[in-house]
Amino acid sequence: MSHLDDVLAYLDAHRTEARERLFQWLKIESISTDPAYKSECVKAAEWLKAELASLGVSAEVAPTDGHPVVLGSIEGRAKKHALFYGHYDVQPVDPLNLWESQPFDPQLVTLDDGRHVICARGAADDKGQVMTFVEACRAWKAVTGSLPIGVTFMIEGEEEDGSKHLPDFLKSHRDRLRADVALVCDTSMWDQATPQITTGLRGMVYEEVTIKAAIRDLHSGLYGGGAQNPIRVLTKILGDLHDAEGRVTLHGFYEGVPETPKQVLDQWASLGLTSESFLKPIGLSEPAGEKGRMLIEMVQSRPACDVNGIVGGYTGIGAKTVIAAEASAKVSFRLVGDQDPTKIRDAFHAHVRARLPKDCTVDFISHKGSPAITLPFDMPDLVAAKSALHDEWGVDAVTLGSGGSIPIVGDFKKILGLDTLLIGFGLDDDRIHSPNEKYDVRSFEKGARSWARVLAAFSE
Amino acid sequence: MSHLDDVLAYLDAHRTEARERLFQWLKIESISTDPAYKSECVKAAEWLKAELASLGVSAEVAPTDGHPVVLGSIEGRAKKHALFYGHYDVQPVDPLNLWESQPFDPQLVTLDDGRHVICARGAADDKGQVMTFVEACRAWKAVTGSLPIGVTFMIEGEEEDGSKHLPDFLKSHRDRLRADVALVCDTSMWDQATPQITTGLRGMVYEEVTIKAAIRDLHSGLYGGGAQNPIRVLTKILGDLHDAEGRVTLHGFYEGVPETPKQVLDQWASLGLTSESFLKPIGLSEPAGEKGRMLIEMVQSRPACDVNGIVGGYTGIGAKTVIAAEASAKVSFRLVGDQDPTKIRDAFHAHVRARLPKDCTVDFISHKGSPAITLPFDMPDLVAAKSALHDEWGVDAVTLGSGGSIPIVGDFKKILGLDTLLIGFGLDDDRIHSPNEKYDVRSFEKGARSWARVLAAFSE
Repeated sequence: MSHLDDVLAYLDAHRTEARERLFQWLKIESISTDPAYKSECVKAAEWLKAELASLGVSAEVAPTDGHPVVLGSIEGRAKKHALFYGHYDVQPVDPLNLWESQPFDPQLVTLDDGRHVICARGAADDKGQVMTFVEACRAWKAVTGSLPIGVTFMIEGEEEDGSKHLPDFLKSHRDRLRADVALVCDTSMWDQATPQITTGLRGMVYEEVTIKAAIRDLHSGLYGGGAQNPIRVLTKILGDLHDAEGRVTLHGFYEGVPETPKQVLDQWASLGLTSESFLKPIGLSEPAGEKGRMLIEMVQSRPACDVNGIVGGYTGIGAKTVIAAEASAKVSFRLVGDQDPTKIRDAFHAHVRARLPKDCTVDFISHKGSPAITLPFDMPDLVAAKSALHDEWGVDAVTLGSGGSIPIVGDFKKILGLDTLLIGFGLDDDRIHSPNEKYDVRSFEKGARSWARVLAAFSE
Repeated sequence: MSHLDDVLAYLDAHRTEARERLFQWLKIESISTDPAYKSECVKAAEWLKAELASLGVSAEVAPTDGHPVVLGSIEGRAKKHALFYGHYDVQPVDPLNLWESQPFDPQLVTLDDGRHVICARGAADDKGQVMTFVEACRAWKAVTGSLPIGVTFMIEGEEEDGSKHLPDFLKSHRDRLRADVALVCDTSMWDQATPQITTGLRGMVYEEVTIKAAIRDLHSGLYGGGAQNPIRVLTKILGDLHDAEGRVTLHGFYEGVPETPKQVLDQWASLGLTSESFLKPIGLSEPAGEKGRMLIEMVQSRPACDVNGIVGGYTGIGAKTVIAAEASAKVSFRLVGDQDPTKIRDAFHAHVRARLPKDCTVDFISHKGSPAITLPFDMPDLVAAKSALHDEWGVDAVTLGSGGSIPIVGDFKKILGLDTLLIGFGLDDDRIHSPNEKYDVRSFEKGARSWARVLAAFSE
């Protein structure tokens, strides 16, 4: 691989232009869950299509019943072919008042510890991560005129909305998505010094629940004590989701949840993911999950339930004596092992209905569910990628599950027959989904170098 | 009382002008709980001051540390003097999208059952009710050149915000507020045909509670199961406020709650306040309070607890996988008998703190508390007012407690030594505090006639 050093040198020499390209993309307000930003999503897709064209990839903005997918292929010197997946859509930005700069006006900021970071919505999730791969390809193309292996790019616009149209897209584009392996850059490093290949992902069930009682809001003085209060009903339902041991109370919830083998637990214990390292930076000190479990289990190999949002009644300034006509919550479950999303959803609905008094009705909105994923530890591509990452970072990559959910990885296996390598350069303090999301400049630059090495390793 | 018939005829002849005056007042957006409407509150006070001046009352807009009080006196032909209390402030208007017309653009609407009603925020609570009394005084003044009895008007601007500056105002204006009886027009009729004199009021404790955990919003995939979720903590706290029997679980909550005597319960049972009459119009069928109690007890003589508002996390469209940094609720307690507001507040705080996990903090905002009030059934003024109401409506007025809370009535007794007659012409379907608040034109017109008769009866 005589060219690799030249490619890495090219990346180092052109890092400013690379960052400027990313900033352009970050300025596009591609929030997928809010229909008001539909045209911005299209704009973000078109921007990427043009970028890929500049690498010689004949890409198109392919329509779906939702936001479009950017799809394009390029052959490589070796026969091997990878499907690279990422997403151009971003999370909503509220609460806007907590941002230190405008979410779509990317800023280069120096943190107190000296790190340079890019602050913007989507900086880490996922535009910055996608561009590490694109810049690696650009460098190979610039230095050698071609890529070491063939690549199909599939960058979607609905990841933050449950990738709801992507499974159909995979089915209808099966032929054009043929590859030997799928690559996903939407995960985190183990820490600032240590890369990670994510070999497992929790699944997810996400439900919205609305409880309704009276046909209108009521005065709590005149009706209080006599009329059903939907907030009272909803808080009872949600308050009952966990028992005193921190376990989720849904019927059958722990069916299919495997116990992690002792030797794996011992290995995890040595990784030093502790309250001090993981919780203290966010102002917490005590793990909140199931009693008797290690923190690393709670967030990676155990299922969890969180209420992600709740609203009902009067939420303005001051006091208002009202009994609301309805109250709503958004509830998500993270799944592991063989937990069945459909059964979990049904159990949640049953949990709600069992606590629903007469005169109350319930409406559910069910978002797409996904089972958990575990990848084989002995994949040759995994071994090659580990070696490439070691060359870049000087330490072994950690191979570990992740607490997050990327449902598409299951669909890659099921629909396309592909295993997926999840390699990302995010950090735990990237504040993805939160105000002041950032991506370290070092993640961006060494991420691109890492992909340049992985592409080389795959061609050997 | 040879003049009374002339006065009633005057009211009938000038009903259109009276309604137009009320519409002017209803156009002023005097929301007291939202600082953005401060100047509108002053405008509403100034408007009323000018109205009172047109009756010969030398009124002023007297400052407080909050919204001002309209204060003015006029002597009458008899030595007897009444303190008339009402409020010019109104509730917030959200959710605005549920209003059929703009809340501050009063409309005359004909309901399906043929009733003519005035639709606007404040139509019933309390501008329309205040004007029944003002119009009665205007008619007496126009017909006879003076009022039958002396009246001091005290119309405040913070009733919907807990009347927080009024007790101090009573203390500092004690001399100018001397009277024989207080009159309040902020309550309802028994039904459309039957007037009511409210002889008891539930007290109130109103608390805002905010639970905080991590220093920022977190991604529920990465942290879910490991990090405390304030919504989970808050829903558990609120879900625990009632037991399976519908009783409030706060320690000592039922101390000072009297059992209603059997003969009173029998009398109440005969009034026909049933699920069919009281709950069906609002789309409900089953009383939600303590098991084994009559519905009329639940809303009048039993204490109650309601969550009036709750908010936390992501509440926009679609799904967002976030663990919020904080969650808040507004919780109110309706008190009866000798329940002590301070003890109830302390017990609520203790209930919250006992359920607060490590790493969570709680902030409270305590609004003014008030004990319950019961008036003597044998007051001569009560007897006179009942007789006057019978003359107007042709049926005996019901004398009964009310589920609502008007804290100022306790302060009238404590600070000014005054008993209070609560006579109002609202109806249960007035939607006060809700979208599409209305006041029946019949309530407005016969209300004014009723007060004209009460003023006459007091002068005899």
